[in-house]
Amino acid sequence: MTRRPKYAEPDSLETVAGNGLLHRRLFLSRGAALLGAGGALLTARPAAAAPPEVPASMKTPGAPLSGYGERSPHEASVQRAAAGQPGAPGTGSSRTPLESLEGIITPSSLHFERCHNGVPDIDPAEHRVLIHGLVERPLIFDLDALSRYPLVSRIQFLECSGNSAALNGAEPPQQTAGGLHGLVSCSDWTGVPLAILLDEAGVKPEGKWLLAEGADAAGMSRSVPLAKAYDDAILALYQNGERLRPSNGYPVRLFLPGYEGNMNVKWLRRIKVTAAPTMTKDETSKYSDLQPDGKALLFTFPMEVKSLITSPSGMQKMRGPGLYQISGLAWSGFGKIRRVEVSADGGKSWGEAALDEPVLSKALTRFRMAWRWSGGPSVLQSRAIDEHGTVQPTRATLLAARGPQFRYHYNAIQSWSVAAAGDVSNVYA
Amino acid sequence: MTRRPKYAEPDSLETVAGNGLLHRRLFLSRGAALLGAGGALLTARPAAAAPPEVPASMKTPGAPLSGYGERSPHEASVQRAAAGQPGAPGTGSSRTPLESLEGIITPSSLHFERCHNGVPDIDPAEHRVLIHGLVERPLIFDLDALSRYPLVSRIQFLECSGNSAALNGAEPPQQTAGGLHGLVSCSDWTGVPLAILLDEAGVKPEGKWLLAEGADAAGMSRSVPLAKAYDDAILALYQNGERLRPSNGYPVRLFLPGYEGNMNVKWLRRIKVTAAPTMTKDETSKYSDLQPDGKALLFTFPMEVKSLITSPSGMQKMRGPGLYQISGLAWSGFGKIRRVEVSADGGKSWGEAALDEPVLSKALTRFRMAWRWSGGPSVLQSRAIDEHGTVQPTRATLLAARGPQFRYHYNAIQSWSVAAAGDVSNVYA
Repeated sequence: MTRRPKYAEPDSLETVAGNGLLHRRLFLSRGAALLGAGGALLTARPAAAAPPEVPASMKTPGAPLSGYGERSPHEASVQRAAAGQPGAPGTGSSRTPLESLEGIITPSSLHFERCHNGVPDIDPAEHRVLIHGLVERPLIFDLDALSRYPLVSRIQFLECSGNSAALNGAEPPQQTAGGLHGLVSCSDWTGVPLAILLDEAGVKPEGKWLLAEGADAAGMSRSVPLAKAYDDAILALYQNGERLRPSNGYPVRLFLPGYEGNMNVKWLRRIKVTAAPTMTKDETSKYSDLQPDGKALLFTFPMEVKSLITSPSGMQKMRGPGLYQISGLAWSGFGKIRRVEVSADGGKSWGEAALDEPVLSKALTRFRMAWRWSGGPSVLQSRAIDEHGTVQPTRATLLAARGPQFRYHYNAIQSWSVAAAGDVSNVYA
Repeated sequence: MTRRPKYAEPDSLETVAGNGLLHRRLFLSRGAALLGAGGALLTARPAAAAPPEVPASMKTPGAPLSGYGERSPHEASVQRAAAGQPGAPGTGSSRTPLESLEGIITPSSLHFERCHNGVPDIDPAEHRVLIHGLVERPLIFDLDALSRYPLVSRIQFLECSGNSAALNGAEPPQQTAGGLHGLVSCSDWTGVPLAILLDEAGVKPEGKWLLAEGADAAGMSRSVPLAKAYDDAILALYQNGERLRPSNGYPVRLFLPGYEGNMNVKWLRRIKVTAAPTMTKDETSKYSDLQPDGKALLFTFPMEVKSLITSPSGMQKMRGPGLYQISGLAWSGFGKIRRVEVSADGGKSWGEAALDEPVLSKALTRFRMAWRWSGGPSVLQSRAIDEHGTVQPTRATLLAARGPQFRYHYNAIQSWSVAAAGDVSNVYA
C-alpha cells in the first residue's frame, strides 16, 4: 500500500491566468493534495497528539430516529429571500440562497418560487388534467391514471425568465449570489412524457401548439410549440425523489427542460391543442421584451448559456490573502456545458475551471478554480461555453444587443469585486 | 413542424422475455408514444371537450411564499419506518420508503438513519476534527478552517451493511420494498478530499490505516485502509446542496464511496493514523460475519452489486391486467451499473431494462421495463450487472456461499410474487 499513489504532480501549482489563478488539475487529478503537502492551505491549528476534550454529545444518548427529518436548527438562517408585490399577497418570487449551497441539487425546501397569485392548496384526489382542443379523443386524467403511465427521471435546472433582471439597472445592486441570481434551481425531476398522453388523445394534423393552464388563482397559462411537447416535455409528478412541493406545482406540473420557468406551468389542469399560440397575458404583456426598434421579443423559450461564481459571493468577506477555491454554477437551456473559464483580473485573462461530474444536458454544472489571492483588489468573473460553442456574453455586449428596456433572459457575466480589505461586492466590469 | 418526429417504430411492442416483458426501446427512443397511439395504456376517461369545473383553488389567492418550504400535507404518510432496539433509545435504524420515491436522489428528510446511541445535537461553532496518530503534524480543524479547503461534489449511494438482512430468514418477511431494503439512499455529497488533510498533517511511512471516531454517545469508530482515504474519501459537509442533516452526521461525516454505511463515520471528531486496524467493537463483534467454517469475515468494505424492483412493491396491489412500467434501483460499491435485467417468470427468462441517465459510479441507477401483465400469477425479479461484469446472485447462490448465519452484505435477487388477484408479496423464488 502506498501512501500517495496519485499525487506526484510537481507542476500542479502552476498559474494559468493573471492574478493567481491555478491550473484545474489541482482538482481533476487530486493534485490538490500538493496544497496540503506544501502547507499552503494550512488553516488548521497544530494540535496536541491527544483527542480534544470529550464533548457533551458523547456523554448522553442523542435524539431518537424520526419519520421525516429536519435540518439542524443551527442552519435555520439559510432561507429563500422572498420579494412580493405590494397589495398582491402570494405574488412575487423567492430566491434560492446559492451562496449557501453546494453541489448541483437544490434541496426542494430551497427551490426558488415564482407565483402569480399564491400557492394553491390542491387535494390530489380531486385534481384532474384535461387534454382537449384539436385532438381525436379528449381525455381527462386523475392522479391514479397518470401514475399508471411510464415515467422518466432527469436532473435538470429550472430558471425564471426574469432571473438576474436587477443587473440591468444603472447602479450595480448589492446582494448575494442568490439575491441577484437565485431564480434558478436544479432537481431530479420524474414524470410522464407528454408525447405519450398526446398520442393517446390523438393530435389532429392542424394541431401545432399547446395551451397549458394552471389551477392557481392566476390561471397562469402559456403557449408551447408542439415540437417541444414531443421532444422532452414531461408532466412532472416527483421532484428530488418525493412528490412535487406545493410551490412547485403539486400535484403535477408541466416541465419543459431548458425553457424559461414561466412556461413550466404549475398545478397543471389542462392542455389544449391549438393551431396557433393563444397569446395569453403572460406571453404578451409579460415575459416579452421591448427591443430598441420598438418591436417586442415574444416566445423566447430556451434560457441562454450562463454562469456565476457563488463562492465567494457578494456581501461576503474574504479571510485574508492565501489560497481559495472559487466555485460556481453554469448551465445552458440548449444542452451541456462544455467549458467554464474564470478570470481574476476583470476579464483580461482567463483560466479553465474544473467541472464536477456529472455534466448533464440542461442541468446545473458545478465548476471550481484554485486561486491564490495576493490580497490586492481583484475582479472575479466566470464565463460559460455550452456544447454548441455559445459563449456567455459580457454585460456590455448584452446591453448593446438588447437595449435598455429588457427584463428577461439576462445572462451576462457576473463580476465580483474583491477589495483589499476582503469585502466582496457586485460591480459592472 | 412535424407532430411525431421520433416515434415511428412499428416493432416497439415486441416482447423480449417470457410473460409479457417488452423491449426497452419503448423508453429509450420514446417509442412509448406508440402505447398511447394504440390506446394500449388508456387509463384516462374520455372527456367532454370543455374544461372541468373551475376548482376552488382558482377562486381565491393561494398561500404566500416561504423561506423554507414544506411538502404537501397530503403526502404526510410517506415516512421512514423506524425500528429501534428495546431499552436502547436512539439505537436502531429507519428505512427510506423506496416504494414511494422516484428518480435517484433521496430527499434528505427521507434518507435512511442508523444510530448506535441516538442523534447528537452538535453546535458547529464548538465542533472540532482532530487528525493525529502517525503524522508529522497533528492538526485540529474547526468548521471555518475545513470550509477553506477545496470541495468536490458527487452523487453517490450509501448503504447500511445490514440492509436486507431480514431476507436471510426461513420465511419471506412481508414488507414493502423500503421495509425490506430501505437502508440505502443516494445524495449529492460535497466535502473536502481527505487526502488533502492527511497530506497537510503528513502521514508517516508506517501509517497504513485510519481510525475514524464519531462524537455521538456510542463513540462509533471504524478502521479504514489508508488507500481508500487517498482514493476518493471526503469529509462531507453538504448533502443534497445544504449542510448535512443531523441524523447523517451534521456538521461533518466521513464519506467513503461504495463502502458499507457504518464506516462512513458520522459526527466525525477525529482521525487517527495507525499502523494496523484498531479492531473496534463495530468491526469485530458487529459488522463481521461468521462463515460456515467457523471463521469470521472482517473488513468487508465495498457493498456488492445489487438491485430491486420498487414498483410494484410488496404490500401493494396491481390494478388489473394491462401494461405496466416496472421500475427499480440498481447500484454497486465497485463502480457503475452496466446492465439490469428483469424477469417476469421467476428467472426463467430475462429482458434488458432501460436505464435512466445519469448512470454514475457508486450511485443509484434507475431502471425501467415495460410489462404487459396477463393477469396470471407471476414472479418479478431484477438482476444487476456492474461494470466489472459481476452479476447479482440469486438468494440460493448467496446462502450456499455465505452459510446460514450471515447478517451483512445481503445482495441477492429480490422476488415479488404477483397473484392473480393482483396482490404483490415477497417470495423466495
